[in-house]
Formats: sequence, structure tokens, C-alpha cells
Amino acid sequence: MMETISTARAHNGVQGVYRHASSATGTPMAFSVFVPDHAPGARLPVVWYLSGLTCTHANVTDKGEFRAACAELGLIFVAPDTSPRGEGVADVPEYDFGQGAGFYVDATEAPWSAHFRMRSYIEQELPALIAAEFPADTARQGITGHSMGGHGALTIGLRNPDRFRSISAFAPIVAPSQVPWGRKALGGYLGDDLAVWRAHDAVALIEDGARVGDLLVDQGDADQFLGEQLRPDLLETACREAGIALTLRMQPGYDHSYYFVSTFLADHLRWHAERLG
Amino acid sequence: MMETISTARAHNGVQGVYRHASSATGTPMAFSVFVPDHAPGARLPVVWYLSGLTCTHANVTDKGEFRAACAELGLIFVAPDTSPRGEGVADVPEYDFGQGAGFYVDATEAPWSAHFRMRSYIEQELPALIAAEFPADTARQGITGHSMGGHGALTIGLRNPDRFRSISAFAPIVAPSQVPWGRKALGGYLGDDLAVWRAHDAVALIEDGARVGDLLVDQGDADQFLGEQLRPDLLETACREAGIALTLRMQPGYDHSYYFVSTFLADHLRWHAERLG
Repeated sequence: MMETISTARAHNGVQGVYRHASSATGTPMAFSVFVPDHAPGARLPVVWYLSGLTCTHANVTDKGEFRAACAELGLIFVAPDTSPRGEGVADVPEYDFGQGAGFYVDATEAPWSAHFRMRSYIEQELPALIAAEFPADTARQGITGHSMGGHGALTIGLRNPDRFRSISAFAPIVAPSQVPWGRKALGGYLGDDLAVWRAHDAVALIEDGARVGDLLVDQGDADQFLGEQLRPDLLETACREAGIALTLRMQPGYDHSYYFVSTFLADHLRWHAERLG
Repeated sequence: MMETISTARAHNGVQGVYRHASSATGTPMAFSVFVPDHAPGARLPVVWYLSGLTCTHANVTDKGEFRAACAELGLIFVAPDTSPRGEGVADVPEYDFGQGAGFYVDATEAPWSAHFRMRSYIEQELPALIAAEFPADTARQGITGHSMGGHGALTIGLRNPDRFRSISAFAPIVAPSQVPWGRKALGGYLGDDLAVWRAHDAVALIEDGARVGDLLVDQGDADQFLGEQLRPDLLETACREAGIALTLRMQPGYDHSYYFVSTFLADHLRWHAERLG
């Protein structure tokens, strides 16, 4: 069911990379899981980390600097891939669409609908696998992510508030319906019906009534994508009108890279741990 | 003189990658430097990190998890490349010799002697550049490294105790004269005179009278290279007989990878900071 690609001891835990045959995507899918040392039989809270455009599980696994905090806080950290991949999977030679750019939706448009089912994969299939194979307490889950993965974290979290007790994001695409990356992806995967897009747009979900207690978002003010693609101001407005307690931290001088994510990921993990008990 | 390839804000400091035309190697050489925020005019202690076989500056820069500790402790962190590189530079299709495997010696054997002058580069040229271009306090320097870079840190530190107040290493090759990696490299770069090798062998340097106050070495006990290539037992014996206070920490379950280095690098930085004042 699940194949172990590698495991290594790190920060008083085990960092593994695994692969399984996904029924959601119809492809092999790789992901990484860090499990801190724990008492026999213990079940630990889980934080999901969804990655951004062009990334696999490996970017945050290599560069995220999350393991020390996860070990200290007793958190399992799961990092999935960002799309189905392989020779039989549709693709275009563009960094922001196709392989590496699944946008956490179930595509309905051909040829993408054959394999690009990242919503089902992240919301249903992979959580069941994690629950079965790792010492995870599924009653205590949080979700975060970066850029396109921040969009994934916010939308999946907002649609499933009973499952995710804590939601945060790094430089998220908060309103894909309103920005070039998102319009390209949602149009390409889901077609032209803007009403369908709203379930995949954090700002639209909030406007349409989705409610959570609070959100944490970090955003670098030197991020080259800030004004055109990310638009945290739109999330700020939506949260204010909805009465959602958004903590939006504009981080002076930080860009869109893993230098930014790795600086603040331990902070986010502490924030999740407080809410996951 | 020095070209900036990239800079990014990270962990309350600036992580830069730079390139310069090296007179020691006769090639362009890239390196990375992290400088934490500091008061105007302040000069900060420097920790040098020498990398292992196959690595460039990028491995530790991406995976080392050193920036948070450097920012907390006020340390500049310098990560050089491991050899000259490029089309005009001699090479062999082997991971443990030639490009990516300079072994921190000045080669005397053709064709390597043309460019492989990593001892002069690390001991002389790059320190002068760092002193000129960064807010470095050259009276307070420490040195560490991993595997082949641990060999470099120990030998350069032992030969220059007045310059390096603190020396540590991760899974170092402690006695290259006595192990396959080292015999191949020292023979290939320096020829067959074993007396010449002794200046490039930490255990031999100590046997020949090199003295420092103390050393810190971390070594994973699941490291696949432990028994054949690394041999910390030889360093233990040499230090005991020389009266050098070696702290050798065998880390249970850890391997030779950056999962190991990143787990303990902050510990080493604290150890260096204590000695650098």
C-alpha cells in the first residue's frame, strides 16, 4: 500500500519519504512525514504543509527548518506533492499550470480531469493513509502552506473547519479568482463558471459564509508577487467583515522564498500546537 | 572584486551568495555568507563551515538550519565551495576525487596542481576577502565542517590555532592517511611521500605536536562511512595521548546526511560562540 523511499533520524525523530499508488490521481504519489519520538501507543497531532508552484514534498523537507519545532512540540508534519506527475500525465511547459501546479482542485476540464484530482487526494485519500500508517491523532489536525499551498491550506481549512482546528499560511494566494495565477489555474482546471471557482477561493469562501475562529498569515513585504498575485489586503477585508480574527504579519524585507518560510515556520508550528492541545 | 549572486532576508539577517575570481585557484569561486542584523559599525565573530564530498556552498546554505542560531548568537557564517570547478578544470568521473572533492590541500601533482589550491584559498585568500567585504571580527574565528569538510576544519584549525579559537566537526575524516577516501585524495593531489601527507591529517598533526585546548565532534552511529572512512576512534586516541579535551558525541541512529548535520549544527554554533566571546 505504501512504499518507504527513505527514512533518516533527524531532530529526535524520523524524517521519512514515502510513495503510494493514489486512486484519486491514478498515479504514484510521493510525500514526506516527520514523526517525533513519542511514547509507545501515543497518537500525535498532525500539521499538514501544502507546497507552492513548482515544488514537490522535497522543498520544505530540505529547506523548511520545521523538525526541531515539531520534535519540541510533539507534532507530526506531512508534506504532500503539488500535483500528479509522470509521462502519462498531461502537462504544459509552464511553471504555473500542469505538473507541479495542481492548485488543490479536482479538475473537470480535459485533459486535466484524468489525473489532476488534488482536492480529493489531500482532503480524502492521503488523510486516510496517514491515519492508517502513522501514529496520528486525527481529531487534532492543523493545516498550513506556502503560496499556491497557502491557497490550498486556507481553502481546505475553511471547507473543513471540523477537521482542521488550526489554519495558517505563508504568502498565500488568498483570492485566486481575482489574480492571474488563479484565473489561469481555475479556468484551466475547472472551466469558465465563476460560481464553481468560489469553493476554491479563500476570500470567496469567507464571503459565502465559511467561518473559523482565527487565521495566521505571514507575508514578506519584499515579495515580488505581493501586489499582483497574493493580495493579503483582500483576505484582511473579508475577515474583518466576517468577524474572523486574522493575524496578518507583514514581515519587512522578506521575499517569497524558503528563506522566508523557514524563518517563520517554527512560529506557525507553535501557533498550531497551542490550538491542537 | 566580489559579485553578488543573490541576497535574501532570513532569520533576522541577510543570506547572500557571492562569486569572485580566485587567484589561488585561477577560477571563479562561489561562496555563501550569512550576516545577522547588528549595530552599525559592529564587527561579528565568524564561523567557517567546510563542506563534504560532492557539495558546494549550497548544501549547507539550503539544508543546514544554522541561521536562527547565528542570528541569536551574533555569528557570521561562511560556507565556501569544495573545489575549483568549470570546463578548464581537471576532473574525473568519480565523486571522491577532482571537482567537488578538493580535500583542502594545495595539489602538487599534475594536472591537479593547476587549479586545486584549496588550502591557500581557504587559509589565505577567502579570509582576506571576508575581512574586507563583511563586518567580520577576524580576531574571533571558529571553524567547523562535515565529512571531508570536517577533515578540512580539523587540519586547518590545528595548523592555525592562533587564528581559530574554536574547532568542531561533523563526522570528520580524522585520519585521511589511513582510510581509502584520504589515501586516494592525498596520493592523487600530493604524490606518494607520506611525510607530506601528515600536514593534511588531523591525527598525524596531533601526533606531530599540534595542540588546541578542546575539540567538539559529533558522529552518527548509523553513519555508513563510520568504520571504514571516518574512524573517530583514531582521533580519540590521538587526543587522549596529547591531552586535548575532545568531546566526541556518538549520536544514536543518525546517518551521514544533512538530517544529521542540521540536527546538531545549532549546538556547535553555541559551542563556538562560547569560545569566541
